Amino acid sequence: MNGSGTAPTPSPRTTYRRLGVEERRTQLIAAALALFAHRAPEDVSLDEVAAAAEVSRPLVYRYFPGGKPQLYEAALRSAADDLQLCFAEPQTGPLTGRLSAALDRYLGFVDEHDAGFSALLQGGSVVETSRTGAIVDGVRRAAADQVLAHLRVREPGPRLRMTVRTWITAVEAASLIWLDEGKQPPLPELRDWLVDQFLALLLATGAGDEQVSKVVRAVLSLETPEGRAGLLARRVTPMLSAADHLL
Amino acid sequence: MNGSGTAPTPSPRTTYRRLGVEERRTQLIAAALALFAHRAPEDVSLDEVAAAAEVSRPLVYRYFPGGKPQLYEAALRSAADDLQLCFAEPQTGPLTGRLSAALDRYLGFVDEHDAGFSALLQGGSVVETSRTGAIVDGVRRAAADQVLAHLRVREPGPRLRMTVRTWITAVEAASLIWLDEGKQPPLPELRDWLVDQFLALLLATGAGDEQVSKVVRAVLSLETPEGRAGLLARRVTPMLSAADHLL
Repeated sequence: MNGSGTAPTPSPRTTYRRLGVEERRTQLIAAALALFAHRAPEDVSLDEVAAAAEVSRPLVYRYFPGGKPQLYEAALRSAADDLQLCFAEPQTGPLTGRLSAALDRYLGFVDEHDAGFSALLQGGSVVETSRTGAIVDGVRRAAADQVLAHLRVREPGPRLRMTVRTWITAVEAASLIWLDEGKQPPLPELRDWLVDQFLALLLATGAGDEQVSKVVRAVLSLETPEGRAGLLARRVTPMLSAADHLL
Repeated sequence: MNGSGTAPTPSPRTTYRRLGVEERRTQLIAAALALFAHRAPEDVSLDEVAAAAEVSRPLVYRYFPGGKPQLYEAALRSAADDLQLCFAEPQTGPLTGRLSAALDRYLGFVDEHDAGFSALLQGGSVVETSRTGAIVDGVRRAAADQVLAHLRVREPGPRLRMTVRTWITAVEAASLIWLDEGKQPPLPELRDWLVDQFLALLLATGAGDEQVSKVVRAVLSLETPEGRAGLLARRVTPMLSAADHLL
Protein backbone atom coordinates (compact mmCIF):
# COMPACT_ATOMS: atom_id res chain seq x y z
CA MET A 1 0.00 0.00 0.00
CA ASN A 2 3.08 2.27 0.00
CA GLY A 3 3.02 4.92 -2.70
CA SER A 4 5.52 3.99 -5.40
CA GLY A 5 8.79 5.80 -4.99
CA THR A 6 8.34 6.53 -1.27
CA ALA A 7 9.55 3.22 0.25
CA PRO A 8 13.14 2.20 -0.58
CA THR A 9 13.41 -0.77 -2.93
CA PRO A 10 14.89 -3.68 -0.96
CA SER A 11 18.50 -4.15 -2.00
CA PRO A 12 19.82 -7.63 -2.89
CA ARG A 13 21.75 -7.41 0.37
CA THR A 14 18.49 -7.00 2.34
CA THR A 15 16.96 -10.00 0.55
CA TYR A 16 20.16 -11.90 1.27
CA ARG A 17 19.76 -11.34 4.99
CA ARG A 18 16.08 -12.06 5.11
CA LEU A 19 16.11 -15.62 3.75
CA GLY A 20 15.97 -18.34 6.39
CA VAL A 21 18.25 -21.37 6.27
CA GLU A 22 15.77 -23.62 4.47
CA GLU A 23 14.74 -20.89 2.06
CA ARG A 24 18.36 -20.16 1.19
CA ARG A 25 19.09 -23.82 0.67
CA THR A 26 16.05 -24.16 -1.57
CA GLN A 27 17.10 -21.07 -3.53
CA LEU A 28 20.62 -22.42 -4.12
CA ILE A 29 19.26 -25.77 -5.26
CA ALA A 30 16.82 -24.04 -7.62
CA ALA A 31 19.68 -21.96 -9.08
CA ALA A 32 21.76 -25.12 -9.59
CA LEU A 33 18.85 -26.99 -11.22
CA ALA A 34 18.21 -24.08 -13.56
CA LEU A 35 21.85 -24.15 -14.66
CA PHE A 36 21.89 -27.97 -15.00
CA ALA A 37 18.90 -27.62 -17.34
CA HIS A 38 21.11 -26.13 -20.02
CA ARG A 39 24.52 -27.62 -19.35
CA ALA A 40 25.91 -30.85 -17.98
CA PRO A 41 26.50 -30.67 -14.20
CA GLU A 42 30.26 -31.11 -14.69
CA ASP A 43 30.35 -27.93 -16.80
CA VAL A 44 28.61 -25.79 -14.18
CA SER A 45 30.88 -24.15 -11.60
CA LEU A 46 29.99 -23.20 -8.05
CA ASP A 47 30.83 -19.60 -8.98
CA GLU A 48 28.07 -19.68 -11.56
CA VAL A 49 25.60 -21.09 -9.03
CA ALA A 50 26.61 -18.33 -6.59
CA ALA A 51 26.18 -15.68 -9.31
CA ALA A 52 22.79 -17.04 -10.38
CA ALA A 53 21.59 -16.97 -6.77
CA GLU A 54 23.16 -13.54 -6.25
CA VAL A 55 25.22 -14.70 -3.30
CA SER A 56 28.93 -15.14 -2.62
CA ARG A 57 30.84 -18.34 -3.28
CA PRO A 58 31.69 -18.74 0.46
CA LEU A 59 27.96 -18.65 1.22
CA VAL A 60 27.38 -21.56 -1.18
CA TYR A 61 30.13 -23.44 0.66
CA ARG A 62 28.54 -22.67 4.01
CA TYR A 63 25.42 -24.52 2.86
CA PHE A 64 27.24 -27.19 0.88
CA PRO A 65 30.65 -27.73 2.52
CA GLY A 66 31.19 -30.72 0.23
CA GLY A 67 31.15 -28.40 -2.79
CA LYS A 68 29.67 -29.36 -6.12
CA PRO A 69 29.16 -33.09 -5.48
CA GLN A 70 27.07 -32.24 -2.42
CA LEU A 71 25.10 -29.53 -4.23
CA TYR A 72 24.56 -31.88 -7.16
CA GLU A 73 23.27 -34.62 -4.89
CA ALA A 74 20.95 -32.17 -3.12
CA ALA A 75 19.66 -30.92 -6.49
CA LEU A 76 19.14 -34.49 -7.67
CA ARG A 77 17.28 -35.35 -4.49
CA SER A 78 15.06 -32.30 -4.89
CA ALA A 79 14.33 -33.23 -8.51
CA ALA A 80 13.66 -36.82 -7.42
CA ASP A 81 11.15 -35.62 -4.81
CA ASP A 82 9.30 -33.67 -7.52
CA LEU A 83 9.40 -36.61 -9.92
CA GLN A 84 8.09 -39.00 -7.30
CA LEU A 85 5.00 -36.87 -6.85
CA CYS A 86 4.13 -37.12 -10.55
CA PHE A 87 2.43 -40.49 -10.37
CA ALA A 88 0.54 -39.70 -7.16
CA GLU A 89 -2.93 -39.31 -8.59
CA PRO A 90 -6.38 -40.01 -7.10
CA GLN A 91 -7.31 -43.62 -7.79
CA THR A 92 -10.65 -42.87 -9.38
CA GLY A 93 -11.93 -42.97 -12.93
CA PRO A 94 -10.50 -44.77 -15.95
CA LEU A 95 -6.84 -45.75 -15.68
CA THR A 96 -5.91 -44.01 -18.94
CA GLY A 97 -7.12 -40.68 -17.53
CA ARG A 98 -5.00 -41.12 -14.42
CA LEU A 99 -1.92 -42.16 -16.37
CA SER A 100 -2.39 -39.21 -18.70
CA ALA A 101 -2.49 -36.77 -15.80
CA ALA A 102 0.60 -38.37 -14.24
CA LEU A 103 2.47 -38.32 -17.55
CA ASP A 104 1.55 -34.66 -18.12
CA ARG A 105 3.34 -33.86 -14.87
CA TYR A 106 6.28 -36.16 -15.59
CA LEU A 107 6.78 -34.89 -19.14
CA GLY A 108 6.35 -31.31 -17.95
CA PHE A 109 9.23 -31.94 -15.58
CA VAL A 110 11.31 -33.38 -18.45
CA ASP A 111 10.48 -30.35 -20.61
CA GLU A 112 11.44 -27.90 -17.87
CA HIS A 113 14.67 -29.60 -16.79
CA ASP A 114 15.76 -30.51 -20.28
CA ALA A 115 19.49 -31.34 -20.46
CA GLY A 116 19.52 -31.64 -16.67
CA PHE A 117 17.02 -34.50 -16.93
CA SER A 118 19.28 -36.29 -19.42
CA ALA A 119 22.29 -35.75 -17.19
CA LEU A 120 20.45 -37.09 -14.16
CA LEU A 121 19.22 -40.24 -15.86
CA GLN A 122 21.82 -41.07 -18.42
CA GLY A 123 24.65 -41.12 -15.94
CA GLY A 124 28.18 -40.82 -17.16
CA SER A 125 28.43 -37.61 -15.18
CA VAL A 126 31.69 -37.13 -13.29
CA VAL A 127 29.77 -36.09 -10.21
CA GLU A 128 27.79 -39.33 -10.26
CA THR A 129 28.21 -41.70 -7.33
CA SER A 130 26.54 -44.86 -6.15
CA ARG A 131 24.39 -42.61 -3.91
CA THR A 132 23.10 -40.55 -6.84
CA GLY A 133 22.43 -43.81 -8.71
CA ALA A 134 20.36 -44.97 -5.74
CA ILE A 135 18.30 -41.75 -5.82
CA VAL A 136 17.46 -42.29 -9.51
CA ASP A 137 16.57 -45.94 -8.82
CA GLY A 138 14.38 -44.75 -5.97
CA VAL A 139 12.36 -42.59 -8.37
CA ARG A 140 11.86 -45.56 -10.69
CA ARG A 141 10.76 -47.78 -7.84
CA ALA A 142 8.37 -45.15 -6.45
CA ALA A 143 6.83 -44.65 -9.90
CA ALA A 144 6.40 -48.42 -10.32
CA ASP A 145 4.77 -48.69 -6.88
CA GLN A 146 2.36 -45.90 -7.71
CA VAL A 147 1.39 -47.48 -11.04
CA LEU A 148 0.85 -50.81 -9.28
CA ALA A 149 -1.36 -49.04 -6.74
CA HIS A 150 -3.45 -47.67 -9.62
CA LEU A 151 -3.91 -51.24 -10.82
CA ARG A 152 -5.25 -52.08 -7.36
CA VAL A 153 -3.00 -55.07 -7.01
CA ARG A 154 -1.80 -55.78 -3.51
CA GLU A 155 0.61 -58.60 -4.27
CA PRO A 156 1.93 -58.14 -7.78
CA GLY A 157 3.47 -61.27 -9.28
CA PRO A 158 6.85 -61.18 -11.02
CA ARG A 159 5.39 -60.71 -14.48
CA LEU A 160 3.23 -57.76 -13.50
CA ARG A 161 6.13 -56.13 -11.68
CA MET A 162 8.38 -56.65 -14.67
CA THR A 163 5.75 -55.16 -16.99
CA VAL A 164 5.37 -52.02 -14.91
CA ARG A 165 9.13 -51.60 -14.43
CA THR A 166 9.69 -52.08 -18.14
CA TRP A 167 7.07 -49.46 -18.97
CA ILE A 168 8.64 -46.99 -16.52
CA THR A 169 11.94 -47.51 -18.33
CA ALA A 170 10.19 -47.03 -21.67
CA VAL A 171 8.75 -43.73 -20.44
CA GLU A 172 12.21 -42.65 -19.37
CA ALA A 173 13.78 -43.75 -22.65
CA ALA A 174 11.07 -42.06 -24.70
CA SER A 175 11.62 -38.85 -22.70
CA LEU A 176 15.34 -38.92 -23.46
CA ILE A 177 14.70 -39.65 -27.15
CA TRP A 178 12.14 -36.82 -27.18
CA LEU A 179 14.76 -34.37 -25.85
CA ASP A 180 17.26 -35.79 -28.32
CA GLU A 181 14.85 -35.22 -31.22
CA GLY A 182 14.32 -31.54 -30.45
CA LYS A 183 11.15 -32.16 -28.38
CA GLN A 184 9.19 -33.81 -31.17
CA PRO A 185 6.37 -34.94 -31.28
CA PRO A 186 4.36 -32.40 -29.21
CA LEU A 187 3.99 -33.47 -25.59
CA PRO A 188 0.29 -34.45 -25.74
CA GLU A 189 1.06 -36.87 -28.58
CA LEU A 190 3.97 -38.38 -26.69
CA ARG A 191 1.77 -38.73 -23.60
CA ASP A 192 -1.03 -40.48 -25.53
CA TRP A 193 1.47 -42.81 -27.17
CA LEU A 194 2.93 -43.80 -23.79
CA VAL A 195 -0.55 -44.47 -22.39
CA ASP A 196 -1.32 -46.61 -25.44
CA GLN A 197 1.94 -48.46 -24.91
CA PHE A 198 0.98 -49.30 -21.36
CA LEU A 199 -2.37 -50.75 -22.45
CA ALA A 200 -0.65 -52.74 -25.21
CA LEU A 201 2.01 -54.08 -22.82
CA LEU A 202 -0.63 -55.10 -20.28
CA LEU A 203 -2.63 -56.86 -22.96
CA ALA A 204 0.39 -58.72 -24.37
CA THR A 205 1.49 -59.75 -20.88
CA GLY A 206 -2.03 -60.75 -19.88
CA ALA A 207 -1.94 -63.26 -22.73
CA GLY A 208 0.47 -65.37 -20.68
CA ASP A 209 -0.27 -64.45 -17.07
CA GLU A 210 -3.47 -64.99 -15.13
CA GLN A 211 -3.01 -62.07 -12.72
CA VAL A 212 -2.28 -59.60 -15.51
CA SER A 213 -5.21 -60.94 -17.52
CA LYS A 214 -7.52 -60.11 -14.59
CA VAL A 215 -5.97 -56.66 -14.30
CA VAL A 216 -6.62 -56.04 -18.00
CA ARG A 217 -10.30 -56.93 -17.65
CA ALA A 218 -10.67 -54.71 -14.58
CA VAL A 219 -8.87 -51.83 -16.31
CA LEU A 220 -10.92 -52.11 -19.51
CA SER A 221 -14.21 -52.26 -17.58
CA LEU A 222 -13.53 -48.75 -16.22
CA GLU A 223 -12.63 -47.25 -19.60
CA THR A 224 -15.07 -45.23 -21.68
CA PRO A 225 -15.52 -45.09 -25.48
CA GLU A 226 -14.38 -41.43 -25.44
CA GLY A 227 -11.19 -42.23 -23.56
CA ARG A 228 -7.79 -43.37 -24.80
CA ALA A 229 -8.64 -47.08 -24.58
CA GLY A 230 -11.76 -46.57 -26.71
CA LEU A 231 -9.85 -44.68 -29.37
CA LEU A 232 -7.10 -47.31 -29.37
CA ALA A 233 -9.57 -50.21 -29.59
CA ARG A 234 -11.36 -48.66 -32.57
CA ARG A 235 -8.10 -47.88 -34.35
CA VAL A 236 -6.49 -51.26 -33.74
CA THR A 237 -9.51 -53.32 -34.82
CA PRO A 238 -9.11 -52.69 -38.59
CA MET A 239 -5.41 -53.64 -38.43
CA LEU A 240 -6.34 -56.92 -36.79
CA SER A 241 -8.12 -58.03 -39.95
CA ALA A 242 -4.58 -58.78 -41.15
CA ALA A 243 -4.37 -61.33 -38.33
CA ASP A 244 -7.49 -63.31 -39.24
CA HIS A 245 -5.40 -66.16 -40.64
CA LEU A 246 -3.74 -66.56 -37.23
CA LEU A 247 -6.88 -67.22 -35.19
CA MET B 1 49.23 -89.06 -31.73
CA ASN B 2 52.01 -89.03 -29.10
CA GLY B 3 51.66 -91.70 -26.46
CA SER B 4 50.57 -90.09 -23.21
CA GLY B 5 53.48 -89.42 -20.90
CA THR B 6 56.12 -89.42 -23.63
CA ALA B 7 55.83 -85.83 -24.91
CA PRO B 8 56.43 -83.08 -22.32
CA THR B 9 53.29 -81.20 -21.34
CA PRO B 10 53.64 -77.63 -22.69
CA SER B 11 54.43 -75.35 -19.80
CA PRO B 12 52.50 -72.07 -19.36
CA ARG B 13 55.73 -70.34 -20.41
CA THR B 14 55.68 -72.18 -23.75
CA THR B 15 52.05 -71.18 -24.34
CA TYR B 16 53.01 -67.66 -23.32
CA ARG B 17 55.61 -67.47 -26.08
CA ARG B 18 53.50 -69.04 -28.75
CA LEU B 19 50.61 -66.56 -28.75
CA GLY B 20 50.70 -63.87 -31.43
CA VAL B 21 49.97 -60.24 -30.64
CA GLU B 22 46.29 -60.40 -31.59
CA GLU B 23 45.79 -63.73 -29.85
CA ARG B 24 47.37 -62.41 -26.67
CA ARG B 25 45.25 -59.28 -26.78
CA THR B 26 42.12 -61.37 -27.29
CA GLN B 27 43.13 -63.64 -24.42
CA LEU B 28 43.64 -60.72 -22.03
CA ILE B 29 40.29 -59.22 -23.00
CA ALA B 30 38.58 -62.58 -22.50
CA ALA B 31 40.17 -62.89 -19.05
CA ALA B 32 39.00 -59.39 -18.14
CA LEU B 33 35.46 -60.04 -19.39
CA ALA B 34 35.28 -63.29 -17.40
CA LEU B 35 36.26 -61.40 -14.23
CA PHE B 36 33.84 -58.53 -14.96
CA ALA B 37 31.06 -61.12 -15.21
CA HIS B 38 31.21 -61.67 -11.48
CA ARG B 39 32.43 -58.38 -10.08
CA ALA B 40 32.14 -54.72 -10.96
CA PRO B 41 35.01 -53.53 -13.20
CA GLU B 42 36.23 -51.15 -10.50
CA ASP B 43 36.73 -54.09 -8.10
CA VAL B 44 38.86 -56.08 -10.56
CA SER B 45 42.60 -55.34 -10.43
CA LEU B 46 45.06 -55.68 -13.29
CA ASP B 47 46.94 -58.21 -11.13
CA GLU B 48 43.86 -60.42 -11.18
CA VAL B 49 43.54 -60.11 -14.94
CA ALA B 50 47.22 -61.03 -15.27
CA ALA B 51 46.77 -64.02 -12.94
CA ALA B 52 43.65 -65.21 -14.78
CA ALA B 53 45.51 -65.02 -18.09
CA GLU B 54 48.60 -66.65 -16.50
CA VAL B 55 50.85 -63.79 -17.55
CA SER B 56 52.81 -61.12 -15.70
CA ARG B 57 51.44 -57.71 -14.81
CA PRO B 58 54.05 -55.93 -17.00
CA LEU B 59 52.85 -57.98 -19.96
CA VAL B 60 49.30 -56.70 -19.42
CA TYR B 61 50.72 -53.17 -19.38
CA ARG B 62 52.63 -53.84 -22.59
CA TYR B 63 49.32 -54.52 -24.33
CA PHE B 64 47.33 -51.90 -22.44
CA PRO B 65 49.73 -49.07 -21.49
CA GLY B 66 46.74 -47.04 -20.31
CA GLY B 67 46.09 -49.63 -17.60
CA LYS B 68 42.62 -50.62 -16.47
CA PRO B 69 40.65 -47.86 -18.23
CA GLN B 70 42.15 -48.95 -21.54
CA LEU B 71 41.58 -52.65 -20.85
CA TYR B 72 38.03 -51.91 -19.76
CA GLU B 73 37.33 -49.96 -22.91
CA ALA B 74 38.79 -52.74 -25.06
CA ALA B 75 36.69 -55.32 -23.21
CA LEU B 76 33.59 -53.17 -23.65
CA ARG B 77 34.31 -52.76 -27.35
CA SER B 78 34.74 -56.52 -27.74
CA ALA B 79 31.46 -57.16 -25.90
CA ALA B 80 29.78 -54.48 -28.03
CA ASP B 81 30.98 -56.20 -31.22
CA ASP B 82 29.46 -59.46 -30.04
CA LEU B 83 26.21 -57.76 -29.03
CA GLN B 84 25.92 -55.98 -32.37
CA LEU B 85 25.97 -59.30 -34.16
CA CYS B 86 22.98 -60.58 -32.17
CA PHE B 87 20.33 -58.91 -34.31
CA ALA B 88 21.99 -59.78 -37.62
CA GLU B 89 19.62 -62.47 -38.80
CA PRO B 90 18.55 -63.53 -42.32
CA GLN B 91 15.54 -61.46 -43.35
CA THR B 92 13.32 -64.37 -44.26
CA GLY B 93 10.30 -65.97 -42.64
CA PRO B 94 7.97 -64.53 -40.01
CA LEU B 95 9.33 -61.59 -38.03
CA THR B 96 8.63 -63.23 -34.67
CA GLY B 97 10.91 -66.15 -35.61
CA ARG B 98 13.73 -63.77 -36.51
CA LEU B 99 13.31 -61.68 -33.37
CA SER B 100 13.25 -64.86 -31.27
CA ALA B 101 16.53 -66.04 -32.77
CA ALA B 102 18.10 -62.61 -32.24
CA LEU B 103 16.86 -62.43 -28.66
CA ASP B 104 18.17 -65.92 -27.93
CA ARG B 105 21.64 -64.68 -28.82
CA TYR B 106 21.24 -61.38 -26.97
CA LEU B 107 19.87 -62.98 -23.82
CA GLY B 108 22.53 -65.71 -24.01
CA PHE B 109 25.10 -62.92 -23.94
CA VAL B 110 23.37 -61.36 -20.91
CA ASP B 111 23.31 -64.74 -19.17
CA GLU B 112 27.00 -65.35 -19.83
CA HIS B 113 28.27 -61.88 -18.91
CA ASP B 114 25.97 -61.45 -15.95
CA ALA B 115 27.15 -58.70 -13.58
CA GLY B 116 29.49 -57.48 -16.31
CA PHE B 117 26.47 -56.78 -18.51
CA SER B 118 24.87 -54.73 -15.73
CA ALA B 119 28.09 -52.83 -15.18
CA LEU B 120 28.43 -52.08 -18.86
CA LEU B 121 24.91 -50.81 -19.30
CA GLN B 122 23.98 -49.31 -15.99
CA GLY B 123 26.95 -46.99 -15.90
CA GLY B 124 28.01 -45.51 -12.63
CA SER B 125 31.29 -47.32 -13.03
CA VAL B 126 34.37 -45.32 -12.07
CA VAL B 127 36.09 -46.44 -15.25
CA GLU B 128 33.24 -45.09 -17.34
CA THR B 129 34.00 -42.26 -19.77
CA SER B 130 32.13 -40.47 -22.53
CA ARG B 131 33.88 -42.87 -24.93
CA THR B 132 32.52 -45.96 -23.19
CA GLY B 133 29.08 -44.34 -23.16
CA ALA B 134 29.37 -43.86 -26.92
CA ILE B 135 30.20 -47.56 -27.38
CA VAL B 136 27.06 -48.59 -25.49
CA ASP B 137 24.97 -46.10 -27.49
CA GLY B 138 26.49 -47.56 -30.65
CA VAL B 139 25.18 -51.02 -29.73
CA ARG B 140 21.71 -49.62 -29.19
CA ARG B 141 21.76 -47.79 -32.50
CA ALA B 142 23.04 -50.86 -34.37
CA ALA B 143 20.34 -53.03 -32.82
CA ALA B 144 17.67 -50.48 -33.77
CA ASP B 145 19.00 -50.32 -37.35
CA GLN B 146 18.91 -54.09 -37.63
CA VAL B 147 15.34 -54.29 -36.33
CA LEU B 148 14.30 -51.57 -38.80
CA ALA B 149 15.94 -53.57 -41.59
CA HIS B 150 13.83 -56.58 -40.56
CA LEU B 151 10.76 -54.41 -40.94
CA ARG B 152 11.91 -53.63 -44.51
CA VAL B 153 11.48 -49.92 -44.02
CA ARG B 154 13.94 -47.76 -45.91
CA GLU B 155 12.97 -44.40 -44.50
CA PRO B 156 11.56 -44.90 -41.04
CA GLY B 157 9.49 -41.99 -39.76
CA PRO B 158 10.01 -40.52 -36.29
CA ARG B 159 7.30 -42.63 -34.68
CA LEU B 160 8.62 -45.91 -36.03
CA ARG B 161 12.17 -45.02 -34.99
CA MET B 162 10.98 -44.09 -31.54
CA THR B 163 9.05 -47.35 -31.25
CA VAL B 164 12.05 -49.47 -32.15
CA ARG B 165 14.41 -47.51 -29.91
CA THR B 166 11.96 -47.75 -27.03
CA TRP B 167 11.69 -51.51 -27.51
CA ILE B 168 15.49 -51.89 -27.56
CA THR B 169 15.56 -50.05 -24.23
CA ALA B 170 12.80 -52.28 -22.92
CA VAL B 171 14.83 -55.36 -23.89
CA GLU B 172 17.82 -53.92 -22.06
CA ALA B 173 15.77 -53.00 -19.01
CA ALA B 174 14.10 -56.40 -18.90
CA SER B 175 17.54 -58.05 -19.12
CA LEU B 176 18.78 -56.03 -16.15
CA ILE B 177 15.62 -56.79 -14.16
CA TRP B 178 16.03 -60.46 -15.09
CA LEU B 179 19.57 -60.51 -13.68
CA ASP B 180 18.32 -58.60 -10.64
CA GLU B 181 15.58 -61.18 -10.03
CA GLY B 182 17.96 -64.14 -9.99
CA LYS B 183 17.46 -64.96 -13.69
CA GLN B 184 13.72 -65.54 -13.44
CA PRO B 185 11.65 -66.32 -15.51
CA PRO B 186 13.52 -68.92 -17.64
CA LEU B 187 15.11 -67.37 -20.72
CA PRO B 188 12.66 -68.79 -23.31
CA GLU B 189 9.76 -67.21 -21.41
CA LEU B 190 11.52 -63.88 -21.22
CA ARG B 191 12.30 -64.08 -24.96
CA ASP B 192 8.67 -64.85 -25.89
CA TRP B 193 7.44 -62.02 -23.68
CA LEU B 194 9.80 -59.53 -25.36
CA VAL B 195 8.66 -60.68 -28.81
CA ASP B 196 5.03 -60.25 -27.73
CA GLN B 197 5.89 -56.78 -26.43
CA PHE B 198 7.27 -55.78 -29.78
CA LEU B 199 4.12 -56.88 -31.59
CA ALA B 200 1.97 -55.07 -29.03
CA LEU B 201 4.05 -51.88 -29.30
CA LEU B 202 3.85 -51.95 -33.10
CA LEU B 203 0.12 -52.44 -32.97
CA ALA B 204 -0.44 -49.63 -30.47
CA THR B 205 1.78 -47.30 -32.47
CA GLY B 206 0.18 -48.29 -35.77
CA ALA B 207 -3.11 -47.04 -34.34
CA GLY B 208 -1.83 -43.48 -34.73
CA ASP B 209 0.73 -43.69 -37.53
CA GLU B 210 0.15 -44.63 -41.16
CA GLN B 211 3.65 -46.00 -41.81
CA VAL B 212 3.60 -48.20 -38.71
CA SER B 213 0.10 -49.38 -39.58
CA LYS B 214 1.40 -50.61 -42.95
CA VAL B 215 4.34 -52.30 -41.25
CA VAL B 216 1.93 -54.09 -38.90
CA ARG B 217 -0.10 -55.45 -41.81
CA ALA B 218 3.03 -56.60 -43.65
CA VAL B 219 4.42 -58.23 -40.49
CA LEU B 220 1.16 -60.02 -39.68
CA SER B 221 0.78 -61.31 -43.22
CA LEU B 222 4.03 -63.29 -42.83
CA GLU B 223 3.11 -64.79 -39.48
CA THR B 224 1.75 -68.32 -39.10
CA PRO B 225 -0.90 -69.65 -36.68
CA GLU B 226 1.80 -71.83 -35.03
CA GLY B 227 4.10 -68.86 -34.42
CA ARG B 228 4.24 -66.35 -31.61
CA ALA B 229 1.83 -63.91 -33.28
CA GLY B 230 -0.76 -66.65 -33.71
CA LEU B 231 -0.52 -67.69 -30.08
CA LEU B 232 -0.72 -64.07 -28.94
CA ALA B 233 -3.71 -63.32 -31.17
CA ARG B 234 -5.65 -66.33 -29.84
CA ARG B 235 -4.82 -65.51 -26.22
CA VAL B 236 -5.61 -61.81 -26.46
CA THR B 237 -8.95 -62.24 -28.24
CA PRO B 238 -10.88 -63.47 -25.15
CA MET B 239 -9.55 -60.56 -23.08
CA LEU B 240 -10.83 -58.14 -25.69
CA SER B 241 -14.41 -59.12 -24.91
CA ALA B 242 -13.95 -56.79 -21.91
CA ALA B 243 -13.45 -53.97 -24.44
CA ASP B 244 -16.70 -54.48 -26.38
CA HIS B 245 -18.25 -51.42 -24.74
CA LEU B 246 -15.44 -49.29 -26.17
CA LEU B 247 -15.99 -50.05 -29.85
